[in-house]
Amino acid sequence: MAMDEFSLIRRYFNRLPRHASVLLGVGDDGALWRPTPGLDLAIAADMLLAERHFFADEDPAAIGHKALAVNLSDMAAMGAQPRAVTLCLALPHGDAAWLDGFAAGFWELADQYGIDLIGGDTTRGPLTIAIQVWGELLPGTALLRSGARCGDDIWISGRLGGAAVALQHRLGNISVPPSVFERCQERLLRPQPRVQLGLQLGAVASAAIDISDGLLSDLGHILQASQCGAEISYSAIALEAGLAELRNQPLVREAVLAGGDDYELCFTAPADKKQVIQQLAEQTGIVLSCIGSIRDEPGIIIKGESGEELHVGRTGYNHFAAENS
Amino acid sequence: MAMDEFSLIRRYFNRLPRHASVLLGVGDDGALWRPTPGLDLAIAADMLLAERHFFADEDPAAIGHKALAVNLSDMAAMGAQPRAVTLCLALPHGDAAWLDGFAAGFWELADQYGIDLIGGDTTRGPLTIAIQVWGELLPGTALLRSGARCGDDIWISGRLGGAAVALQHRLGNISVPPSVFERCQERLLRPQPRVQLGLQLGAVASAAIDISDGLLSDLGHILQASQCGAEISYSAIALEAGLAELRNQPLVREAVLAGGDDYELCFTAPADKKQVIQQLAEQTGIVLSCIGSIRDEPGIIIKGESGEELHVGRTGYNHFAAENS
Repeated sequence: MAMDEFSLIRRYFNRLPRHASVLLGVGDDGALWRPTPGLDLAIAADMLLAERHFFADEDPAAIGHKALAVNLSDMAAMGAQPRAVTLCLALPHGDAAWLDGFAAGFWELADQYGIDLIGGDTTRGPLTIAIQVWGELLPGTALLRSGARCGDDIWISGRLGGAAVALQHRLGNISVPPSVFERCQERLLRPQPRVQLGLQLGAVASAAIDISDGLLSDLGHILQASQCGAEISYSAIALEAGLAELRNQPLVREAVLAGGDDYELCFTAPADKKQVIQQLAEQTGIVLSCIGSIRDEPGIIIKGESGEELHVGRTGYNHFAAENS
Repeated sequence: MAMDEFSLIRRYFNRLPRHASVLLGVGDDGALWRPTPGLDLAIAADMLLAERHFFADEDPAAIGHKALAVNLSDMAAMGAQPRAVTLCLALPHGDAAWLDGFAAGFWELADQYGIDLIGGDTTRGPLTIAIQVWGELLPGTALLRSGARCGDDIWISGRLGGAAVALQHRLGNISVPPSVFERCQERLLRPQPRVQLGLQLGAVASAAIDISDGLLSDLGHILQASQCGAEISYSAIALEAGLAELRNQPLVREAVLAGGDDYELCFTAPADKKQVIQQLAEQTGIVLSCIGSIRDEPGIIIKGESGEELHVGRTGYNHFAAENS
């Protein structure tokens, strides 16, 4: 069944806002939103394209989940409480079966974090999802990329490598056992934004970013913004379950260090915060691993198990890198 | 010349914010924005796709202009002062010549309205531009679609039909003299958002919308939201220069009534505001035409020059209408 643009919006995307701050939601030229007095806004936008960021024939519920998750992950990396989003959606067809799934995945995650969808745009075209999110935070508490200082510890949340291994397995570049693939695939399809962790890191971390392009690339953004370098230990990185035995395979190592798409947080903190952060790990139930430290010299040194220096061919994702001239 | 994602962002889109309300612009996981105390936010998002909303081989400066203009037009239709945008951009290539033009068109309009670009996303893919805009307004002053009342006058700003005639001329469905085409083409490529007018209508208009899908369709949205109907006079509609002599050609009539893409405002106001609105037209130099009035009975009656009822085949643009079953 196909439906027209306005029925589609009414059916899937026009829900009563849950927050009183939404004065007007979907259905006019714009939405109206009343900021909480005294709070600043954090704002981000991420766009997902079929065959670039996801497979077009993927479970639409996973696509709906992921499109929202990657945006909430940006709020986590800022230490902001996400509040509301707009959604721009281009669809090849007004396909109700696909939309049923997409909307279910989107709203399940939106409900989990109390997010209101307050506007956007629907059009026919190659499957494309652009979401903009904003959240609130106390002035001065934002987690920036620019705050890392020499001597700070470097931390990551959760376990890395799952999303990239699942992708490489599906592309036929690597082969992992079915049970490992299932776990990794879950990371690829349904990344969990670390929103609560981000909120709690505001008082602890000196810098933060979410790992979307790959650990080396995203840590590199912190280093560039903070004008410093890093040394990290490969063996200190917690890996997705099942990947530990495969950790020295070159493609697994590349997935862990440069693969991206895990949407965990990479953050830095003064060394005297170690205990506070370990307590945070216990409170939240999220593995938090100290993987190295910030140094003055630029660049990233990666140490292997025996202290030898490791090198990876690719450091992360860059959407136009293949065309570098 | 092609360039990588991060160089591209630095070169074209990372400008110092002009407003102190932007605490942090492009370059982190999100931007930080401090709302003006006491003001509400109006928020909208519009996405433009190559070959659907514009020709891919169009002057890139026109594409940059239009992508921003249609979003500013939503702010005009809300009566809000636009402040800042995020930009999600999918490009087939990181093509510097194209980006030079696109960025020039975008920034020229952004400068005109004091808009800060504070974030977004760049990726490789089919040429797609998704912009989200927000603006500020005093609580209670927003122009909604739902405020039209029986007896209100219906007004439009500017001259209609130009954009749709230019498009139909280019598609070979209609033929107009070159000088007329040039004027119409300017409307199609560089629509002017009626931001100042929208701000001034807050105290006068009962409802407003911008004409993007076509007059009948967009007026229809006001009528639906306000639960009423309308009678309008075709001959009261100001036409793009050169179209007056062609006004009774069926395709020109359809362009004027249903063509869209002019981004003028359609608004309603109590009949006793007529003089105030005429003064507003003189102050702003924008033609404001009273084209009819709101009635209780649903539907839109269109009267021709001799009072006869006119009918058009198509009432406006609906992105999935061709698939209606």
